[in-house]
Amino acid sequence: MRKDQTKVKAVLQAGTPGQQLTVMGWVRSKRGNKAVAFIALNDGSTIANLQVVVDVTLFSEELLRQITTGACIRVDGNVVESPGQQQRVELQAARIELLGTADPQAYPLQKKGHSLEFLREIAYLRPRTNTFGAILRLRHAMSYAIHEFFHSKGFYYLHTPLITSSDAEGAGAMFRVTTLPPQNPPTTEDGRVNWAEDFFGKMTSLTVSGQLEGELGALALGEIYTFGPTFRAENSNTPRHLAEFWMIEPEMAFYDIHDNMDLAEEMLKYLTRYALEHCEDDLKFLNDNWDKELLERLHFVLEHEFVRLGYTEAIGILEQANRKWEFPVKWGVDLQSEHERYLVEEHFHKPVILTDYPAEIKAFYMKQNEDGKTVRAMDVLFPKIGEIIGGSERESDYTKLKSKIDALGIPEKDVWWYLDTRRFGTAPHSGFGLGFERLMLFITGMGNIRDVIPFPRTPGHCEF
Amino acid sequence: MRKDQTKVKAVLQAGTPGQQLTVMGWVRSKRGNKAVAFIALNDGSTIANLQVVVDVTLFSEELLRQITTGACIRVDGNVVESPGQQQRVELQAARIELLGTADPQAYPLQKKGHSLEFLREIAYLRPRTNTFGAILRLRHAMSYAIHEFFHSKGFYYLHTPLITSSDAEGAGAMFRVTTLPPQNPPTTEDGRVNWAEDFFGKMTSLTVSGQLEGELGALALGEIYTFGPTFRAENSNTPRHLAEFWMIEPEMAFYDIHDNMDLAEEMLKYLTRYALEHCEDDLKFLNDNWDKELLERLHFVLEHEFVRLGYTEAIGILEQANRKWEFPVKWGVDLQSEHERYLVEEHFHKPVILTDYPAEIKAFYMKQNEDGKTVRAMDVLFPKIGEIIGGSERESDYTKLKSKIDALGIPEKDVWWYLDTRRFGTAPHSGFGLGFERLMLFITGMGNIRDVIPFPRTPGHCEF
Repeated sequence: MRKDQTKVKAVLQAGTPGQQLTVMGWVRSKRGNKAVAFIALNDGSTIANLQVVVDVTLFSEELLRQITTGACIRVDGNVVESPGQQQRVELQAARIELLGTADPQAYPLQKKGHSLEFLREIAYLRPRTNTFGAILRLRHAMSYAIHEFFHSKGFYYLHTPLITSSDAEGAGAMFRVTTLPPQNPPTTEDGRVNWAEDFFGKMTSLTVSGQLEGELGALALGEIYTFGPTFRAENSNTPRHLAEFWMIEPEMAFYDIHDNMDLAEEMLKYLTRYALEHCEDDLKFLNDNWDKELLERLHFVLEHEFVRLGYTEAIGILEQANRKWEFPVKWGVDLQSEHERYLVEEHFHKPVILTDYPAEIKAFYMKQNEDGKTVRAMDVLFPKIGEIIGGSERESDYTKLKSKIDALGIPEKDVWWYLDTRRFGTAPHSGFGLGFERLMLFITGMGNIRDVIPFPRTPGHCEF
Repeated sequence: MRKDQTKVKAVLQAGTPGQQLTVMGWVRSKRGNKAVAFIALNDGSTIANLQVVVDVTLFSEELLRQITTGACIRVDGNVVESPGQQQRVELQAARIELLGTADPQAYPLQKKGHSLEFLREIAYLRPRTNTFGAILRLRHAMSYAIHEFFHSKGFYYLHTPLITSSDAEGAGAMFRVTTLPPQNPPTTEDGRVNWAEDFFGKMTSLTVSGQLEGELGALALGEIYTFGPTFRAENSNTPRHLAEFWMIEPEMAFYDIHDNMDLAEEMLKYLTRYALEHCEDDLKFLNDNWDKELLERLHFVLEHEFVRLGYTEAIGILEQANRKWEFPVKWGVDLQSEHERYLVEEHFHKPVILTDYPAEIKAFYMKQNEDGKTVRAMDVLFPKIGEIIGGSERESDYTKLKSKIDALGIPEKDVWWYLDTRRFGTAPHSGFGLGFERLMLFITGMGNIRDVIPFPRTPGHCEF
């Protein structure tokens, strides 16, 4: 901040009566009478507002008239003890400078209690609300905690590429990236689009995962993690899907599936504890206003050892459950949210890590088990969210990996370099992916993924 | 790392003779005689190798034959004092497990001293070399230091969007993002491509800057920074340009241009000091092998107060310099690298911050000075690199900003939300952009930007 500025958070936490200081921020509300006005001032440093007390006889009517919700002001004043119950201290204004007005007829954030749907339409202004201030501070805290966690363990942050010419990961539909003219692109002799004339000399897309490149890093540097944007061009209009989202993908040489599970559990508990310890105010606000079970759920994750069991065993439990499933259960099916939540919330009453899924429903790079049917996959299942992490031990055997790739018809040109890591100094290794916005749904208790990212991209929506 | 593993860095720093431990890593070289073999083992944790001493009589010939450069092994052994000068301790092998071979006929990283050009062609393997190990560890260190710096000052990390429907920033050519069929896209009645049928219902591109969205964040949360990928579709085949690169863009409410300069100088010194304090080995390696003036240059930046002067004054100095410029100098021209480096390296012998550039050569959002000719821009100029940071105080006055936007013909549909921030609670504010790979060129001393990012994207190149 500016040298002459004190943040509202610092005033509220450490301001002492008699102190003279300067605050700057946005007016959340103004009330009062003919003698005194009370301005609730927020500068984004904390969810709480600073109460600025104004002796109206000292200021011009014109100035006071313009101090409306949304206006930006600078206040020089004295810290005084607050007679109210709401706060320890308040600021007695000595000088007020109006930095920016906000016409009450035009400013959309007048009253409290706007719907989340309405706020999505004005996503460019919603960071000025209590709810989105809290969410964005939590988003920062979780980002920082992720870097801190991995850095403290000797992992390196690896920037994997966003634009890719490979679609081998197969995790979903991709966006094409191009500079060819959209109308009449150059064509080859047989009349097809001539990608050789595109910017990169071939067809390129936005990545769906940094994992394969992450493995290259791990097989050189030991332990790495990615934390970057990822894209899916699926026409999914659900509260759980975004076309552009952020992923964390650690990859670790020498880890087997058990080391992998240990790391995932440790990380999720670290992040949950970090939020509880560093973002108490914001969590309390979200708990009180949006999800009364939020704090309870965070403690639930923190205080239980995660159950670890095989997919086959889980199917047995689900088959014996006295329950009508929307999606019927039998060995071989992919689990749905209703199954995952049943295991966590009703059967075990603990977070669950499921392992050893059928090979058929998992990706080509997962380590094949001896049974010939299952792979060393792991999914971490959470209350309310369902799957929050998906990962596996990776297939490190060249021959097995090559057979799988051939069986699936994945073109060699897309994966020769990935295969090469199994030819040159291969090692057992593992990794997983955490969708950052899924984590944010869990940490904030919000129900719609569009509300935990600043500017959501979904089918038909790319504003601001 | 695995619970039973010790990292090479830890052995070299803290291993004590008599200790039994397990290391895992890749063979950098093997030499020896009929009685004893010496394996140089690296696991990515540090640039130094651990010397593994092998009594060849204890192991099978077949095993020893397969321990070649690039192979991956696990060694259980005892730490012993090293009789050699190169290292304090070494590891006497008791058990060796071969995890992955690397056929000497096929493995491309046999001998030392490959050219950087060759290594670019095998970018998927180059993290296994000393040079790229050092660069990637430094890249991690700088990323972490950036988060640490901003977090410690109360900034929030804001994830601005990558896919955008606006091209208002105007910083460069853009990549189109689409899911329309490339061959015969749907058309409107007048025969043009019908973008309404594209994924987002309009034409979309990859962002060239997160600044405008960053300002939205700053005008709600106070101080924010972005750190994410950015794209330019320019056909620039130079050692300084990438099509995909990472940018750091802080935006701060209430900062004027002087606060902005203070922050930029403090940040660059913080990062430089962090590298010197945390990455001594890697910097020494790069200094000795690639750029003998690297360490000197880092200290140069750390130990000098940055000179601050106006563009107009700088033009005067350049005009009076007894020098033939490739690009002639007069008031109004954009400075070239030769001019920037002259000011830093020959005239002032200090880093330089130039301010108050002609409005004509700078972007629309910069604060207009009273003189009607210049804007409150700032560029930070460094030795060897030239411009490392570009920033400005932002125009916070609605009327002035609107006139400029109209004069430049920027469509209102692209910027109405940006303009709105000047209608609703505007505030003086500033920000800047730091190209992360430019920073990495400075910190590593490397000469080509393709060598400071794991997987470079340039015209015609999108591999791995």
